[in-house]
Amino acid sequence: MRIRLDVAYDGTDFAGWARQPGRRTVCAVIEDALTTVLREPIRLTVAGRTDAGVHASGQVTHFDVPDVALATRSIGGDPANLVRRLAKMLPDDARVRSAVAVTDDFDARFSALRRHYRYRLTDAQWGAEPMLARITAEWTRSLDLDAMNEASSTLVGLNDFAAFCRRREGATTIRDLQRFSWTRDDDGVLIGAVTADAFCWSMVRSLVGAVASVGDSRRTVQWCAGLLDERARSAEVPVAAARGLCLVGVDYPDDAQLAERNAITRDVRSTTSGCCGG
Amino acid sequence: MRIRLDVAYDGTDFAGWARQPGRRTVCAVIEDALTTVLREPIRLTVAGRTDAGVHASGQVTHFDVPDVALATRSIGGDPANLVRRLAKMLPDDARVRSAVAVTDDFDARFSALRRHYRYRLTDAQWGAEPMLARITAEWTRSLDLDAMNEASSTLVGLNDFAAFCRRREGATTIRDLQRFSWTRDDDGVLIGAVTADAFCWSMVRSLVGAVASVGDSRRTVQWCAGLLDERARSAEVPVAAARGLCLVGVDYPDDAQLAERNAITRDVRSTTSGCCGG
Repeated sequence: MRIRLDVAYDGTDFAGWARQPGRRTVCAVIEDALTTVLREPIRLTVAGRTDAGVHASGQVTHFDVPDVALATRSIGGDPANLVRRLAKMLPDDARVRSAVAVTDDFDARFSALRRHYRYRLTDAQWGAEPMLARITAEWTRSLDLDAMNEASSTLVGLNDFAAFCRRREGATTIRDLQRFSWTRDDDGVLIGAVTADAFCWSMVRSLVGAVASVGDSRRTVQWCAGLLDERARSAEVPVAAARGLCLVGVDYPDDAQLAERNAITRDVRSTTSGCCGG
Repeated sequence: MRIRLDVAYDGTDFAGWARQPGRRTVCAVIEDALTTVLREPIRLTVAGRTDAGVHASGQVTHFDVPDVALATRSIGGDPANLVRRLAKMLPDDARVRSAVAVTDDFDARFSALRRHYRYRLTDAQWGAEPMLARITAEWTRSLDLDAMNEASSTLVGLNDFAAFCRRREGATTIRDLQRFSWTRDDDGVLIGAVTADAFCWSMVRSLVGAVASVGDSRRTVQWCAGLLDERARSAEVPVAAARGLCLVGVDYPDDAQLAERNAITRDVRSTTSGCCGG
């Protein structure tokens, strides 16, 4: 049986999503809890491999498990019962929001249509609200919301984001940036909404860093737009702090569309490179 | 010169507000930073002495400082400049939101008209959203919002809250509970709003514990209302976790009212017992 797990975590005390020997990672903590509950070695496939310090409220994963393992007394064959069991085992900073059975056509990584990220950034002189300090980045200069939105809008579209991506062998840097806009919330914190089909490594944080450099008047909107002409990562683009970044959601097709998509794309998977976290 | 400081903190890693030898407390961290900046020993007077683990977004304090100390190069006589200086010195989990000069009639503790607390409580099976886990308490049974509001409303008014207060020598337990009501936010988290002229020790957390016991059907509304007849702390009242509690604001009279109030109350101050945190 294939199970979709929706996951949330405070990334502050994790060395990112992906397993690394000797490091505390989100993937390892959740896989280990699942393996204990289900008495089967569990391996998760994830929609967005977030970096160290990056958070998620809407991360999506899947795993395959024999029906017999799910039929243990504590779960009773119903994946929903996993949620309550896992809540008692997992630490406060990583939780499983929901667990549902899905068709084998669903793949948390390859079926994803688009990923939604949010970036929290404060330019208040007093710094970040302490209760939200772990999920809010601080900018020491004042930021102009209109300038940031103007700069952001120049980047939206199907573009080569090489200037914003750390190099990864064989990975394309052409992405469809579908949304990139900013508002101030009731506390004056800048909230960036960033949506794309997929992101290359460090892309969201580089987008934020570039646009904030326009917002604090050190760069112009034209400079920001011109970055799309670069063919490699630009040293002029600051990478904004991981703490402000959160994966808030992932969109998927419905079941009928999934089956159709898979018939077309199954054979080309092995030749394409997947996404990674912002 | 008297300065009003508005303060916010994440109480998780503090042993409460009040100074205690060898413990990390909010008061000590902020007083030490002020003493360093102003090169004068600073002692803060506070509106609500919050317990270990309790948070604040709207705590209010005051202190007195010679004009000459405020005229140092870095502050230039303007208290507002303190905010930026302190932001660089204070840790992420305790910050000064604003600093303004006030009249000597203002006293953060004795001038306060009422204190506003908020309590965040989740009964979701998956637990608290990890990014807000430090400021959200978990309740393992499902909670009925209507029952909680019905129980809360029976406690509102000028009552003896002895059943809800840990004993403190000479302290009255008669308080004017002006607001006690619950809503669910967009994420389904129960948000309790609690306002009174002042609170005795552990009062807010005991009010929440009593009402949640009604919400999860273990107690009746009548039981909750009957607690007001008790003359001492009731062992039947659970004390809700500190992590869910936050001091969100303190109300004060305007300057003209302050001067008038002080003329009346100055001589009786020494005989009354002040408030402490929830």
